[in-house]
Amino acid sequence: MKKHTLAVTVENKPGVLTRVATLFRRRGYNIDSLTVGTTENANISRMTIVVQGDDAVIEQVTKQLHKLVDVIKIVDLTDERAVDRELVLIKVKADNTVRAEIVQIVEIFRARIVDIGRSTLVIEATGDSVKIDAIEESLRPFGIMELVRTGRVSMMRGTK
Amino acid sequence: MKKHTLAVTVENKPGVLTRVATLFRRRGYNIDSLTVGTTENANISRMTIVVQGDDAVIEQVTKQLHKLVDVIKIVDLTDERAVDRELVLIKVKADNTVRAEIVQIVEIFRARIVDIGRSTLVIEATGDSVKIDAIEESLRPFGIMELVRTGRVSMMRGTK
Repeated sequence: MKKHTLAVTVENKPGVLTRVATLFRRRGYNIDSLTVGTTENANISRMTIVVQGDDAVIEQVTKQLHKLVDVIKIVDLTDERAVDRELVLIKVKADNTVRAEIVQIVEIFRARIVDIGRSTLVIEATGDSVKIDAIEESLRPFGIMELVRTGRVSMMRGTK
Repeated sequence: MKKHTLAVTVENKPGVLTRVATLFRRRGYNIDSLTVGTTENANISRMTIVVQGDDAVIEQVTKQLHKLVDVIKIVDLTDERAVDRELVLIKVKADNTVRAEIVQIVEIFRARIVDIGRSTLVIEATGDSVKIDAIEESLRPFGIMELVRTGRVSMMRGTK
């Protein structure tokens, strides 16, 4: 099954998230990732939902989403020329003996060190899922103490 | 009312998001931002929820969240020394006459240009909410065509 990325524009009202989440739940889909954030208009939020399913079923879900009052627009960015990005924060064990090695990995991935503790580093990285997975793999041998990903946001390239 | 940042660790199972969203909905809170993403363990997801409310009420919500079967851990990062980050993608109008000016803003904010269209640029920036708001303000005069924010992720500094 393919992973679909849906950009869903909604009214910024209480309960919208619940209604959207319930719709996916009823269909038995687990959502891979979901983000809700504000947009350039404070009354409008934008959700990015990554969900697995074949095209026919996703089309059905999209139709049902359109019926929810607070849903304004849905764009399936799966087959589009889209920019995909997510952000990850990774806290990794980093005593003096390995710190230089970790800094090197951070540079290779154009990531950033955002906190230095006595025996830990917190690293921020952005990229598509493949890049985020790769940096996670590179840091795993040092000992990942904590990791949080935002989930994907997506935007069509150029002007449509 | 204060904005609270809750880091909620949950089992990666269908329906968890719905249950959590419903709980906030019942209490009448609108969620400012919410992200769900995977962690270093594929069976575990981590939600970051930003919600407004006074301390007493948030404490109640936290207690109720703890009762949900699939919720493993909740940390209120509001008063902690935490790293807060979010990612934004901004598509801005950018013809030849203003492109250089926009590139300069991008450099000031240490942002990145991730797509160049004929008359548009897509810019990726990361930072805390204040920085993201600031870059949005700086680009607004050029004409923002599309904007999507991941919502906040948060992590405690150092070792606890």
